[in-house]
Amino acid sequence: MTLKRLLLVSNSTLYGGGYLEHCQDQIQKFLGGQVKRVLFIPYALQDRDNYAKTARQKFQSLGYALDSIHEAADPVESVLTAEAIFIGGGNTFRLLKALYDNNLIQVIRKKVIEDGIPYIGSSAGTNVATVSINTTNDMPIVYPPSLQALGFVPFNINPHYLDPNANSKHMGETREQRIKQYHEEPDTPHVLALREGCMLLVEGNKATLLGITKARLFKRGECPTEHEPGEDFSFLLNQ
Amino acid sequence: MTLKRLLLVSNSTLYGGGYLEHCQDQIQKFLGGQVKRVLFIPYALQDRDNYAKTARQKFQSLGYALDSIHEAADPVESVLTAEAIFIGGGNTFRLLKALYDNNLIQVIRKKVIEDGIPYIGSSAGTNVATVSINTTNDMPIVYPPSLQALGFVPFNINPHYLDPNANSKHMGETREQRIKQYHEEPDTPHVLALREGCMLLVEGNKATLLGITKARLFKRGECPTEHEPGEDFSFLLNQ
Ligand SMILES: [Ca+2]
Ligand SMILES: [Ca+2]
Repeated sequence: MTLKRLLLVSNSTLYGGGYLEHCQDQIQKFLGGQVKRVLFIPYALQDRDNYAKTARQKFQSLGYALDSIHEAADPVESVLTAEAIFIGGGNTFRLLKALYDNNLIQVIRKKVIEDGIPYIGSSAGTNVATVSINTTNDMPIVYPPSLQALGFVPFNINPHYLDPNANSKHMGETREQRIKQYHEEPDTPHVLALREGCMLLVEGNKATLLGITKARLFKRGECPTEHEPGEDFSFLLNQ
Repeated sequence: MTLKRLLLVSNSTLYGGGYLEHCQDQIQKFLGGQVKRVLFIPYALQDRDNYAKTARQKFQSLGYALDSIHEAADPVESVLTAEAIFIGGGNTFRLLKALYDNNLIQVIRKKVIEDGIPYIGSSAGTNVATVSINTTNDMPIVYPPSLQALGFVPFNINPHYLDPNANSKHMGETREQRIKQYHEEPDTPHVLALREGCMLLVEGNKATLLGITKARLFKRGECPTEHEPGEDFSFLLNQ
């Protein structure tokens, strides 16, 4: 059984840093030497050409060539021949709808789960890697045919997690309140809330929190718990 | 042709104030003397009994009896006999799904548009009054059968509008960026962004901004514009 390999990053850019700069070492270690080309999926943003240029520059600086799926004659074919896949951030609804519209959900699952090619997601690209996009922070600017996503992991992730701001006068729900509302719905999975600057590395049935910030785990009906970088999250995989 | 009458409030509670306190005068003026009972729809929150109690207390203090639709034997019947409708805030996806699940969309439209009974919405209750919930800030905790909503007005509203925070280090999209992403999609309607503390009064083909804060209007392909309380927004109705 090939090992499923995922690097699920909370955010592409850390305040004051460059694009993917805060996780470039983890990306290089994760892709290693044998991967030569990465297939980039830019669907979460509207300007795909520009997004591909940005991603290509970064990955080339890390030693990898980058093909963008929107430049491929046949998107499904480009996935079938991919050595590695990177899905970038933007609007999660737009991204998931494009994956469905281009019939990519099953073929990406096959390559990542059955063939074991490495998958990197950032922000929206992390949302769509999980069981569903129920815990995205993005605005529903389009209506995808379902909220079910690639389902590489059986739980939800909330990227860009934001702690309640004590001196805010804003009366909209806090991020914690929104996640707790989700858990008011029956049989909802755990929600791993990743603060900016952290990421989850999954290799087969082992999962580890990487990065420089803590994660907060919400389990339905239980108090949320805080977790340090380096902690083992493997228990989340067989939820 | 009966006049369509709507009071679309951005937020239920203003920082430091009581429930609906910041808009109670407008509510009393809007409902006037002839309305005796208000039909409350609490579907946006999970604890409907508690929500109905809160709303009932407030409306009774303003001189109106309140029936909650979740206590009605037949929800559709309760709408058909309603003198006025108030839909409260909470999670907009949960609210819209419940309206569809209970077959209430058409019957509420009939009462408000054809019979002209007054409609009050707050936060999520304002979102569902518009053409669609594409510009809600809420998390998609459930999947409604569509994002199309009651369509009392032909544009979108973004409640609890939040200006970009210059000294924030958070890298998630600002509210303005999210609305601009919406307008990257083809043929998307105007988005009226209501800061907390303001509301839109619609009477027939006349619309006026009420309250104590300014609104920001986003039109696809144009620069956003700022609008003071008291301004006439009637042009938005025949968009
Ligand atoms: Ca996003
Ligand atoms: Ca809300």
